[in-house]
Amino acid sequence: MIMRKAIYPGTFDPITNGHINILEKATRLFDEIVLAVANITGKDTLFSTEERLYLCQESVKHIKEVKVVSFDGLVVDFAREIDAVTMIRGLRAVSDFEYELQLALMNKNVYQKIDTVFLVPDSQYLYLSSSIVRQVIGLGGRLHDHIPQIVEDAIIRRFQEKNLKDLKG
Amino acid sequence: MIMRKAIYPGTFDPITNGHINILEKATRLFDEIVLAVANITGKDTLFSTEERLYLCQESVKHIKEVKVVSFDGLVVDFAREIDAVTMIRGLRAVSDFEYELQLALMNKNVYQKIDTVFLVPDSQYLYLSSSIVRQVIGLGGRLHDHIPQIVEDAIIRRFQEKNLKDLKG
Amino acid sequence: MIMRKAIYPGTFDPITNGHINILEKATRLFDEIVLAVANITGKDTLFSTEERLYLCQESVKHIKEVKVVSFDGLVVDFAREIDAVTMIRGLRAVSDFEYELQLALMNKNVYQKIDTVFLVPDSQYLYLSSSIVRQVIGLGGRLHDHIPQIVEDAIIRRFQEKNLKDLKG
Amino acid sequence: MIMRKAIYPGTFDPITNGHINILEKATRLFDEIVLAVANITGKDTLFSTEERLYLCQESVKHIKEVKVVSFDGLVVDFAREIDAVTMIRGLRAVSDFEYELQLALMNKNVYQKIDTVFLVPDSQYLYLSSSIVRQVIGLGGRLHDHIPQIVEDAIIRRFQEKNLKDLKG
Amino acid sequence: MIMRKAIYPGTFDPITNGHINILEKATRLFDEIVLAVANITGKDTLFSTEERLYLCQESVKHIKEVKVVSFDGLVVDFAREIDAVTMIRGLRAVSDFEYELQLALMNKNVYQKIDTVFLVPDSQYLYLSSSIVRQVIGLGGRLHDHIPQIVEDAIIRRFQEKNLKDLKG
Amino acid sequence: MIMRKAIYPGTFDPITNGHINILEKATRLFDEIVLAVANITGKDTLFSTEERLYLCQESVKHIKEVKVVSFDGLVVDFAREIDAVTMIRGLRAVSDFEYELQLALMNKNVYQKIDTVFLVPDSQYLYLSSSIVRQVIGLGGRLHDHIPQIVEDAIIRRFQEKNLKDLKG
Repeated sequence: MIMRKAIYPGTFDPITNGHINILEKATRLFDEIVLAVANITGKDTLFSTEERLYLCQESVKHIKEVKVVSFDGLVVDFAREIDAVTMIRGLRAVSDFEYELQLALMNKNVYQKIDTVFLVPDSQYLYLSSSIVRQVIGLGGRLHDHIPQIVEDAIIRRFQEKNLKDLKG
Repeated sequence: MIMRKAIYPGTFDPITNGHINILEKATRLFDEIVLAVANITGKDTLFSTEERLYLCQESVKHIKEVKVVSFDGLVVDFAREIDAVTMIRGLRAVSDFEYELQLALMNKNVYQKIDTVFLVPDSQYLYLSSSIVRQVIGLGGRLHDHIPQIVEDAIIRRFQEKNLKDLKG
Repeated sequence: MIMRKAIYPGTFDPITNGHINILEKATRLFDEIVLAVANITGKDTLFSTEERLYLCQESVKHIKEVKVVSFDGLVVDFAREIDAVTMIRGLRAVSDFEYELQLALMNKNVYQKIDTVFLVPDSQYLYLSSSIVRQVIGLGGRLHDHIPQIVEDAIIRRFQEKNLKDLKG
Repeated sequence: MIMRKAIYPGTFDPITNGHINILEKATRLFDEIVLAVANITGKDTLFSTEERLYLCQESVKHIKEVKVVSFDGLVVDFAREIDAVTMIRGLRAVSDFEYELQLALMNKNVYQKIDTVFLVPDSQYLYLSSSIVRQVIGLGGRLHDHIPQIVEDAIIRRFQEKNLKDLKG
Repeated sequence: MIMRKAIYPGTFDPITNGHINILEKATRLFDEIVLAVANITGKDTLFSTEERLYLCQESVKHIKEVKVVSFDGLVVDFAREIDAVTMIRGLRAVSDFEYELQLALMNKNVYQKIDTVFLVPDSQYLYLSSSIVRQVIGLGGRLHDHIPQIVEDAIIRRFQEKNLKDLKG
Repeated sequence: MIMRKAIYPGTFDPITNGHINILEKATRLFDEIVLAVANITGKDTLFSTEERLYLCQESVKHIKEVKVVSFDGLVVDFAREIDAVTMIRGLRAVSDFEYELQLALMNKNVYQKIDTVFLVPDSQYLYLSSSIVRQVIGLGGRLHDHIPQIVEDAIIRRFQEKNLKDLKG
């Protein structure tokens, strides 16, 4: 038996119970899983890289195989650097399936040793995405069963800050 | 580290280089992979179960982690029987993606412990399927790079027998 | 307010809890719903038209707005005959969505007054279909939560008869 | 017979003949239809909420069952407020079908009583969307048969103002 | 300028106005178009190869660039034989798009010189297929605007023969 | 035989080997092909219209049938102006197929004489797009086999300028 290591990259803006469900399933396949948070800055994300790292760390601390880090540049370069030859992606009903194939092929093109495995979350998470979470909560809705409590609190606080800023504007 | 075992079920009528490519990738994730050939009889398959088993065994004997067997009934019942909690599926560009999700969810419904992982074959196999292999060779074409030599020989022989029977018929 | 009548056509081979869920939702929109079972005979269905009618009647007798009948020929001709201008279709994740649009447009082409409404079943039925029910139970599986008890019993009995016939055959 | 009320939400930037066609079909199913214009402000819409409300009101005044209003926040919260348990969506050939299912399920998750019905517009509107209307007219094209005259005039005027501003810019 | 020749292969069971529309568009691109009818025999087609050839010939005799022939075996082998390096396919809204790509790539794999061009029929034919034509007319419907008169007559006659045979059975 | 002229419109930000492959295939069908670069200005493109024109001209100068120009406004108006009745589009595995059909129909709606032909690039380009090229190189990756050398150099230079500006910024 060999030591198996995988990378699970994403923006995680924010992490949802769907991501956590994928990580729990991944522990069946891998001895170590690196949750890799893309270091994207600017106005396109709701949370800064530091905030996303913190929310991920707090949300997955019960899964001992997972290590949370951030990365810059191409994800395959980072995979090579940490010596991971498998990339994990969640496959939801709202996945852009063709885009996922494109990414998997392009990544292999840049780094020949990397392969992608797709995992399916449990059915209650099949239609869940970070963007719908931001949208629903931003409009005043609640999604208790779909995100960790700490994430829900952070989103609500963020939208309150935004509204305050708009008022002062 | 734990011992990891997976089942890769299918009709394999016949096995193609796409299937073999998936198996080779699966050895990165699992210590043992059971290639499970569905025992379907009747006029819908080109080869009998015994023939399909033989072609699979010959085609994968270079991959030491793979064991070829046939099974009856529900694949999840067979998975439970052999104590496998992971099912492997290849995800090609011509996959019926929604159908794959349906299968994965139904399987989980019948056997709560089973999960499905999807692997992407190398790009030259993205558009390959057993049915297009049967169709092309049945019409007189050749597909050297897409199936093992032993499989190509078997298909050609099978269609020659068929044509002979039609002539006598 | 006007009297609203709709037709819900299909093969119902057999009726599932997904169909019943759609009918329950349809009572919000219509005063009368005609569950129209296609009179298809031959070896392609598991149950005869009479059997399918009986299973439907027993399974929906708690929904007072629903009337179960069988029909021959084009469904739009039957809709015209019973004076229904709305056709109900369930829209599942495994729907062949383009095919559904094709049917809706062709039906309108033949009978200008007919329109199609698509209803989404509750999430536990999104991946359910009559064919997967036949397949799972035919292979020895169980689907308690997805079909009425009377339907499950009928399918099991049917496959036992089949196996007996195969043994004698 | 009961009183049936539905909500038809959207940005309507601008309303097209496809939307109006859906509304006309919806009068067969509902006694009252609330056309609900999302109150989105900022640079992402071509028209302000007030302008979109006005164009909708003028374009549907011939359909007596329709009431035009604007709303803030989650559409399901607004549906609950006005006591509507059915949401109408148009299902076009260019619909993002998976996204529509995601929305329908998320809405049900937030407000258990709400259901979504999908209506198919007549075939000439199957490929029509507000965004393609904005794009074609913005580039100098004409789409007489796809939008009300008042809407076409408003778009042309808007692009003239924009160009003037760019020149002065 | 060079002489341009293309092959338009299919089963044409039967030819529809959608096929004819594609052929008319193809005359803009090619000097000669070979409508190639697959010689498939057996119970899977409504019309024999001879009947399909006849219906095609009668239906396209007004298009001087088109020549109607039948072929056996792989379509790419036939294309090579008649020295055609371009294959025409119609791209409808109900096309199985991924399957079309698979075919195009497999064909190129067998015959390196062949390329596929996809043409889009006019919008009234976007949802038309031979199978829906057979189905609608077989159930007693009419589709005047979608097939040539000679084809409609032939289908009706065929179904009358079938019913007579079933009665005598 | 008539003179055949086509237009191949796009943003080409930047041109890739996939585009060039489509152009090479198009020379089989057309005597003259106008590569039409959309004159879009602003922050949404990586290269200015002049830069994109230059990169296209340098990259296709070996294909004598191709003429590179830029255009403003609706592409169909430009097609009419230069007397082209055929529009070329590449059909990749990551194409938004429904959107392509929408465009083809809308274009025909505005200019009745225009038709669209779709060409499939060779398999190594099936998953290639300008946006994935920008993304991979922007993050430090290399794509030698997918873009002309002159284009790769230009992208690297552009990102270096950007980073410099950000540092000074």
